[in-house]
Amino acid sequence: MRSYRVAVVGALGAVGQQMVRILERSSLAVSSLKPLDIEENAGKQVSFRDKMWTVETSGKGKFIDVDIALFSAGAEASEILAPIAVSEGAVVIDNSSQWRMTDGVPLVIPEVNPEALRSHKGLIANPNCSTIQMLVALKPLHDAFTIKRVVVSTYQAVSGSGAAAIRELREQTQAVLDGRQAVAQVYPHPIAFNALPQIDVFLENGYTKEEMKMVNETHKMLDPNILVSPTAVRIPVFRGHSESINLEFEKPFELEKVFELYKHAPGVRLVDDPGHLAYPLALDAEDRYEVFVGRLRRDPSIENGLNMWVVSDNLLKGAALNTVQIAEKLVEMDLIGR
Amino acid sequence: MRSYRVAVVGALGAVGQQMVRILERSSLAVSSLKPLDIEENAGKQVSFRDKMWTVETSGKGKFIDVDIALFSAGAEASEILAPIAVSEGAVVIDNSSQWRMTDGVPLVIPEVNPEALRSHKGLIANPNCSTIQMLVALKPLHDAFTIKRVVVSTYQAVSGSGAAAIRELREQTQAVLDGRQAVAQVYPHPIAFNALPQIDVFLENGYTKEEMKMVNETHKMLDPNILVSPTAVRIPVFRGHSESINLEFEKPFELEKVFELYKHAPGVRLVDDPGHLAYPLALDAEDRYEVFVGRLRRDPSIENGLNMWVVSDNLLKGAALNTVQIAEKLVEMDLIGR
Repeated sequence: MRSYRVAVVGALGAVGQQMVRILERSSLAVSSLKPLDIEENAGKQVSFRDKMWTVETSGKGKFIDVDIALFSAGAEASEILAPIAVSEGAVVIDNSSQWRMTDGVPLVIPEVNPEALRSHKGLIANPNCSTIQMLVALKPLHDAFTIKRVVVSTYQAVSGSGAAAIRELREQTQAVLDGRQAVAQVYPHPIAFNALPQIDVFLENGYTKEEMKMVNETHKMLDPNILVSPTAVRIPVFRGHSESINLEFEKPFELEKVFELYKHAPGVRLVDDPGHLAYPLALDAEDRYEVFVGRLRRDPSIENGLNMWVVSDNLLKGAALNTVQIAEKLVEMDLIGR
Repeated sequence: MRSYRVAVVGALGAVGQQMVRILERSSLAVSSLKPLDIEENAGKQVSFRDKMWTVETSGKGKFIDVDIALFSAGAEASEILAPIAVSEGAVVIDNSSQWRMTDGVPLVIPEVNPEALRSHKGLIANPNCSTIQMLVALKPLHDAFTIKRVVVSTYQAVSGSGAAAIRELREQTQAVLDGRQAVAQVYPHPIAFNALPQIDVFLENGYTKEEMKMVNETHKMLDPNILVSPTAVRIPVFRGHSESINLEFEKPFELEKVFELYKHAPGVRLVDDPGHLAYPLALDAEDRYEVFVGRLRRDPSIENGLNMWVVSDNLLKGAALNTVQIAEKLVEMDLIGR
């Protein structure tokens, strides 16, 4: 059986650490791990499958002995390093936003559009966290009833903005409880005990970049004909994005059938028992691999309408896990060259 | 000039205290205040316009010398006490859910449907908090472009559930920061660093009571032809409800015109300047009377679509303030008998 030399770029970051942990638990045959990070972290040790691996600085020449490079180093680093890694022969799976909408770069969720991997030229992009969990939930319904329009409002955790944001929520929260002033640095306004209707920067059309990612990535991965109307909101949650999703289908549907589809949908866990107050919750999704779906109910305001509540761990399926699953799928489909 | 004898039922509760404070600042000519509450609070003192007023137990005979009774004592107390107060000659404005959908009981937001007050028979109901702020924002747009359909997702503060819920959020939050277990009592699941897609109990159709209030009260107050598709969610915010609202109009509209309408709409404060990262925020709405509207942007997924973000203090416009404003309107329209 073939085994793979894997590099993780940004191995000491929040998502990078999750990548190493998920890789460790995965069935992927890894012959060597190469943790790469910024210069000040070089020399540190990363534990992986009962061995310690030394962190090196990433750069030219570092990918010559690498089969698969998982990138989680941000868009700027990826712009420079990903082409280097590809030219040195590695297959790059990049978690940043840098290449997602680039023509010829597959943007992939294994449960949604694995076939897009066949045309890869060494570089594959991992989608935005809020898009991933939405599309894992939407895919089986789109196949069955053809989604016409999506109205989505998100309830996003701070960990999507990295370690500094997690610290900021913690510090601001303690300050408020102690009667002190909350100081905002990562976000433009205090996030503790607040709801911020802004994620990423504003664009000309009044939408944020985060909101337009949900539109554009849905078109690239699922179907360019699906209309998406998004509102992305940050709330004081550490981990786990929640989404309130309203769907309009082309075809009539039975609610029973939706439940049935979700019982067998890949990557989905149905949690929907209002009688026992069971529905997906951010706190329950922490450290879990699935996309949780619940509060399924017909929307009587349109002919073929459905409301639902979708939750997933933004650091796992929303980032590190999906990246590793792309690697697994590439191996399964025998799409790693050399 | 005529002056009024005012009773506040539940005067020591979270909303009752706000009622007394707002009444104090209002232009209403109050000749006497009668604070009523449960037996264990009888004898306590309430300060109002430089005088102390002694709390009495509410019950039969207590409304004979009262012109206006503001009720914030919950649905059960209101079921028994409101008819007593009316029979003793007081005009009751009730903040509970008890009478809202009762035929013949006007349900009123002064900015939306003041004319409904004319038919009152001694009892007027104050709407649900999430409906009030939504309809204050929707009214000018409905008048101009006729709203066909509303898809709304809420981000609601815990103060809507009373003082125990405020304590619970505070205690759970401190527990999590200290690495201890969060204990849920008021809500069925922990609210600290979480998002709960359940407010009030579930009904047969899969919606919660809170969600159906938004549907039914919109029909009663604004227009029975407006289709409303709601999702009500509790988030870890102490005060201030936020709402992500998607609208579909019958008529074409210009975004410019929406801005123009909101500059002059009663009860509305427009906060919409993405270039300076200005949009409505729950923290900024605290202790403010207005309904804040922002993030106005065309929804390109339908012909006449608009997205917006609406925030207001759920204890003020969402409860105590609207109740007092109904009293003011009754006086202004000369609808207090005797």
